[in-house]
Amino acid sequence: MARLVMKFGGTSVANVERIRNVARHVKREVEAGHQVAVVVSAMSGKTNELVGWCREASVLHDPREYDAIVASGEQVTSGLLAIVLQDMGIPARSWQGWQLPISTDDAHGSARILDVNGDALVAGMENGGEVAVIAGFQGVNLATGRIATLGRGGSDTSAVAVAAAIKADRCDIYTDVDGVYTTDPRIVPRAKRLDKIAFEEMLEMASLGAKVLQVRSVELAMVHKVRTFVRSSFTDPDAPELKTAGDPPGTLICDEEEIVESEVVTGIAFARDEAQVSIRRVPDKPGIAASVFVPLAEANINVDMIVQNISAEGFTDITFTVPTADFERAKATLAAVKSEVGFETIEGATDVVKISIIGIGMRSHAGVAAKAFKALSERAINIRAISTSEIKISILIDAAYTELAVRTLHSIYGLDA
Amino acid sequence: MARLVMKFGGTSVANVERIRNVARHVKREVEAGHQVAVVVSAMSGKTNELVGWCREASVLHDPREYDAIVASGEQVTSGLLAIVLQDMGIPARSWQGWQLPISTDDAHGSARILDVNGDALVAGMENGGEVAVIAGFQGVNLATGRIATLGRGGSDTSAVAVAAAIKADRCDIYTDVDGVYTTDPRIVPRAKRLDKIAFEEMLEMASLGAKVLQVRSVELAMVHKVRTFVRSSFTDPDAPELKTAGDPPGTLICDEEEIVESEVVTGIAFARDEAQVSIRRVPDKPGIAASVFVPLAEANINVDMIVQNISAEGFTDITFTVPTADFERAKATLAAVKSEVGFETIEGATDVVKISIIGIGMRSHAGVAAKAFKALSERAINIRAISTSEIKISILIDAAYTELAVRTLHSIYGLDA
Repeated sequence: MARLVMKFGGTSVANVERIRNVARHVKREVEAGHQVAVVVSAMSGKTNELVGWCREASVLHDPREYDAIVASGEQVTSGLLAIVLQDMGIPARSWQGWQLPISTDDAHGSARILDVNGDALVAGMENGGEVAVIAGFQGVNLATGRIATLGRGGSDTSAVAVAAAIKADRCDIYTDVDGVYTTDPRIVPRAKRLDKIAFEEMLEMASLGAKVLQVRSVELAMVHKVRTFVRSSFTDPDAPELKTAGDPPGTLICDEEEIVESEVVTGIAFARDEAQVSIRRVPDKPGIAASVFVPLAEANINVDMIVQNISAEGFTDITFTVPTADFERAKATLAAVKSEVGFETIEGATDVVKISIIGIGMRSHAGVAAKAFKALSERAINIRAISTSEIKISILIDAAYTELAVRTLHSIYGLDA
Repeated sequence: MARLVMKFGGTSVANVERIRNVARHVKREVEAGHQVAVVVSAMSGKTNELVGWCREASVLHDPREYDAIVASGEQVTSGLLAIVLQDMGIPARSWQGWQLPISTDDAHGSARILDVNGDALVAGMENGGEVAVIAGFQGVNLATGRIATLGRGGSDTSAVAVAAAIKADRCDIYTDVDGVYTTDPRIVPRAKRLDKIAFEEMLEMASLGAKVLQVRSVELAMVHKVRTFVRSSFTDPDAPELKTAGDPPGTLICDEEEIVESEVVTGIAFARDEAQVSIRRVPDKPGIAASVFVPLAEANINVDMIVQNISAEGFTDITFTVPTADFERAKATLAAVKSEVGFETIEGATDVVKISIIGIGMRSHAGVAAKAFKALSERAINIRAISTSEIKISILIDAAYTELAVRTLHSIYGLDA
């Protein structure tokens, strides 16, 4: 007997027929003797409809009202799944964020979960095996009593937070892919599904372009050590391989200790929507980085990769990346502080891609980076900038070489299936 | 300065454009210096969509889940109206039933309101003139913390209950008609709008077929003496006649003391969807009425008009009406207890109409009934049964004579415009 959280996204609950399919997945786990809590998103399309009405009502709408409106989508799905489960003979009930409660801060529209009270869920599971169906994406700001939503990908975060609160053995994220791959299979057909990936690695994969799970939910899973399992919602719920005692097909995101022997490199991620900005001949003196990045932060521009080399003759160059959408704004922001910072020129490019090699194993292996540089050089791929962390090497190159670089790296680290 | 509750139904809030029109009605009252709380229904069509999904999920669905699902419709409208009001520069916020709270019993799907806590509403009005936008049709069962809905016409009931809680000077029900008429204008073109009608009269009018207001809301208004004003939501919100100090066009439902001189007859109502059932030669002994009507009640058949005359030779006849939809079931129910009750035959008819003459003034006027009987007789309209109360005379006749009878009665009591 295990305690499971099962999370289903919008396409999995798009209509009552699909909700019935979700219920069959739930039934399988209940019949296997597990205690189950389910977290659901709104029917796909519904959130967009509700957001559209908010915008039509006013361009600048009160985020508290927006939250009350948009949270109704998950309210509907949670009730419908509870009804379908009951119809299949499974005791079930819906829970809204304010009913448990799932308490949040007051950052309406992108609130953070402060606490999940799982007492009622556990009580329902222990007494009569009731399946809790929890509306994802929403909570309540207990200070004001108002509904708050968690922002994009909020339902994943809800699921992990509920799993942490009820000390679930596993949090199953049912999605439209069947797991986490070594890289994007559309670019590398020989990419393979990972059986396991460490939280830290997944965090790099998620934030670097592998869109399986929202970064926030992985962070939360890492902090609370919630074993999170990415799997497909489109398999037949009654398929024999899902009824065996072993692990079903999918990817387990877990503590690195649970991964007996880590690969040196786990995956290759890439992000196309970044632009490079470089400022040349910046006088190298204390406070210079702040004078560059504080104005960008104040302009709400999210700076990613930052590279600054040691100076020569009292001057240095600083390179960083920003979302492509913010490229022009970033350049204008810097131009406005040019005399203050004292740099010579601003350069930049939008036709770049950031490729990242990720693996916990590289902490204890030398030569991982050198191997990459050599392979790229042999293919005449010019490296614009490099930055590294303990478990990641990021390389900025011309976008035209994306596929070639990703395939090359995928191959040299032995990731091809 | 007055304190007003304004209620808008589904067609008035069918889309964001119409919600903007509703907001202009609210703005007019705010600018006139009034304190305002608004009660809204779901966008028209939304409730049906949600109910449809519940039915698709399961024919026998948990009414608690049904309530959580269906209540989301009003949640959306309340948030949207709050946004539009803010956009017009009017401080506003939405309130769900559980937030105030509006507490109900546990009869999910057709719950009764136990209490409305209006403290937060009054506080908002007193401090900064905040307009409260309350989701109608819904409350919360405080014993379980679950959302409960009030059933058909629930938003009218919500509005009156809120008005009672905050001691509003008036509860304005904005609807698709511009008031309460002496009878249905589609049958009698010369029907005229009443300026005022007493609660008791409206209760008879509402339950007898004038579909302006739900009976429950009128009952509640009568108990709490909430002055309820029926008016059109389709007039131009900025029309000059709505900005004068006098009463706007519409009908005020109020205590009879407020009606200086009551008409003898206020209106003529009729109900077409009733069927007549008569049982002949029932032995007249104690308990005989119970032996007939208890089985019908147990079969959940709503019996309306009951007529029993004094007996002759130890036998009597009993006539009553039931909804046409229950006619066959009522006859079958009686047939099953025939030997027990000891009557001779069951007769009945579905092509009948019940016409009611309503007026508080008839309490102090003799000859009101006689006048009706004479007029009908002159037109060769046969009366099948008669029942009367203090303020009402109901007559059962053949349906074919409906229009003739209604027009005749409307005319002889001086109601024609």
